[in-house]
Amino acid sequence: MRQLTHQISIGTRGRRLYDVTSQVCDWAAASGMKTGLLTVYIQHTSASLLINENYDRDVIADLERFFARLVPDGDPLFEHTVEGPDDMPAHVRTALTQTHLSIPLIEGRPALGTWQGIFLYEHRHEPAARRLVLHLAGA
Amino acid sequence: MRQLTHQISIGTRGRRLYDVTSQVCDWAAASGMKTGLLTVYIQHTSASLLINENYDRDVIADLERFFARLVPDGDPLFEHTVEGPDDMPAHVRTALTQTHLSIPLIEGRPALGTWQGIFLYEHRHEPAARRLVLHLAGA
Amino acid sequence: MRQLTHQISIGTRGRRLYDVTSQVCDWAAASGMKTGLLTVYIQHTSASLLINENYDRDVIADLERFFARLVPDGDPLFEHTVEGPDDMPAHVRTALTQTHLSIPLIEGRPALGTWQGIFLYEHRHEPAARRLVLHLAGA
Repeated sequence: MRQLTHQISIGTRGRRLYDVTSQVCDWAAASGMKTGLLTVYIQHTSASLLINENYDRDVIADLERFFARLVPDGDPLFEHTVEGPDDMPAHVRTALTQTHLSIPLIEGRPALGTWQGIFLYEHRHEPAARRLVLHLAGA
Repeated sequence: MRQLTHQISIGTRGRRLYDVTSQVCDWAAASGMKTGLLTVYIQHTSASLLINENYDRDVIADLERFFARLVPDGDPLFEHTVEGPDDMPAHVRTALTQTHLSIPLIEGRPALGTWQGIFLYEHRHEPAARRLVLHLAGA
Repeated sequence: MRQLTHQISIGTRGRRLYDVTSQVCDWAAASGMKTGLLTVYIQHTSASLLINENYDRDVIADLERFFARLVPDGDPLFEHTVEGPDDMPAHVRTALTQTHLSIPLIEGRPALGTWQGIFLYEHRHEPAARRLVLHLAGA
């Protein structure tokens, strides 16, 4: 077994899910490995990762509607408000989703299901530069 | 280090948690590896994975009660309704739980705690065929 | 590639987030590996793991406020009450957060972002002894 790492920078422009499937999978496919374990890691606490449907775009819009209702901006519950009304909700949304994803590599490709895509979930409203760290171990 | 992969198909019969602990752990134990990292991956966006108590069956029933209240079927918030009133809630439940689990292998067995079980969480009401991809790297 | 494992025991004293970043990262750094994948696993179903901001302590206090409101102790929804009013909420909180974390090792250190810390999230009110299993594969 051998391993590779890679870093990706994503410029986000507001709160929503950004499809990073091709950037992640193309890098893994280019490794030439046939079998392995791919890990995607995000170095932030107000943006996160998740795998969900990437076929019908209503799904990711509805996911955002759900999280906006569950964790409202400006909630008086929160005391950490110095960075703005969307900052503490961003930390909560991060806690409720993922900071890393691991996906087996099978026959040279990440074993995503037919409808699965990999998303960076930006939780802040302002533009941001987000860093992903990729790790692949295999053969 | 070496690696192995395996695929499991699970036929589900409605929304609930299905205990897959023995199927996953028996495969890992049969590898003959002593130390490693086991990853379980589900190739779906309306069914997910989680580790929780598998001793008292009230726990998994209460988990389902909680998610049914948190993400109600037919919620008018959702616009993605073409696949039925339980479809978009299934995607939200998937986002709130896990698409993959990684468990260290110690002394030839996945290092589950005393009360931990591995569950496939089916979020749709109709029967479905669900695919799990297993990856084990170790020695 | 080679691998190492380690176990850490953490004594908790009530419901809150405990910062375990240095214990986890110091062990990984001491391995001498330059590149790899670090996995942290918790062997419990009423305590969990998450990565979030470890700079401003208001953040983890607000996270606890959010989860206390979302999953209230003594909720009449729950039937699994024999272990106390905080037990079933602890299982739900565990399902909503993480049982394992994987972090790439880059240049000899876990690739945490500037503000990221690794937390054990104790969901029970009584003191408890919690066990973490660490796995590191790399070179």
